[in-house]
Amino acid sequence: MSSRTNLTREDWIHAAQHVLVTSGVDAVRVDTLAKELKITRGSFYYHFKSRSELLEGILDNWRVRATEEVILHLRNAHSSPLQQLQRLLELPSHGRTAKDAAAIELGIRAWARRDKQARRAIDEVDSHRLNHIEGLLIQAGIPSHEAQDRAYLMYAYQISLSLLPNDETLQQRAQRNLRIASILIPEESAPI
Amino acid sequence: MSSRTNLTREDWIHAAQHVLVTSGVDAVRVDTLAKELKITRGSFYYHFKSRSELLEGILDNWRVRATEEVILHLRNAHSSPLQQLQRLLELPSHGRTAKDAAAIELGIRAWARRDKQARRAIDEVDSHRLNHIEGLLIQAGIPSHEAQDRAYLMYAYQISLSLLPNDETLQQRAQRNLRIASILIPEESAPI
Repeated sequence: MSSRTNLTREDWIHAAQHVLVTSGVDAVRVDTLAKELKITRGSFYYHFKSRSELLEGILDNWRVRATEEVILHLRNAHSSPLQQLQRLLELPSHGRTAKDAAAIELGIRAWARRDKQARRAIDEVDSHRLNHIEGLLIQAGIPSHEAQDRAYLMYAYQISLSLLPNDETLQQRAQRNLRIASILIPEESAPI
Repeated sequence: MSSRTNLTREDWIHAAQHVLVTSGVDAVRVDTLAKELKITRGSFYYHFKSRSELLEGILDNWRVRATEEVILHLRNAHSSPLQQLQRLLELPSHGRTAKDAAAIELGIRAWARRDKQARRAIDEVDSHRLNHIEGLLIQAGIPSHEAQDRAYLMYAYQISLSLLPNDETLQQRAQRNLRIASILIPEESAPI
């Protein structure tokens, strides 16, 4: 057994997210995690008051990451709204990290079906992302009364990219993303 | 403990699907299920040769149901393609059964990330549904070179309806479905 100082709070959260993905939230238990990490339960209580605080930690960690992603995109304000939208569609394709993030998100969505705390985190992230896409669409020239539905469609497409299995190459996907963007942002609306 | 004749093969499959939804595929084990169903493991082996046959049963049960759904829709060939597409969009809203079906599907998608057998079932159902939607879009007047992308968008939207939480009333959802359909099937393309 290692000493309790070896593992950080983040290590526990990452281990817990891994268990969430493979076995669901009911399996995220202190004793199971301690066994998996080969460490005493004492180490856990050094970082967390309770299992409930660990669960909150999983959600916070995900929420911060998902929200920061959107903020990072807002920083790219020098690229055109259209370019920013296309980059958004590419997000789910970016290798291993994107796959892991998508798996964690799916685990949290499954959890949110039965839990208010998880549901609040999901709602917050979803509306953050939807507002971001809607804003970009309006900047790209979509009339504001249509922007919400088109933003929802674009978000649904983005989520499906990480949910539906597919054997596309990155290039095929990029080409489809372009075609999808041109369905959702018809040429006549683009100001550039 | 009940006698082994009390439980059907379907009972075992439904119980296994329930465990898949709440705890992931690793938790679908004969001993756990027997305990949950308060029955001996012997009953299990009366219906299944092995755990692997039970897992195959979960997938078959889901695949048959999902495929039959599409076939049922094809039977409504007297309604217009547009009406059929709208009815497709309403599917995820139909109460408790639809919610359970969506949860099982989500569980199978999570499982398919790590398992070829589950992935094959998912691929088959996805392409069945996508082909169905694509066919309806072509009948509704969408040029065939555009139908595939629009079918994908419509399917992504349909999946998102069961994945994204929302507090819409059925009426609000029906109204949005109409607006979404009119984005994906522009009026100029509709032959009727």
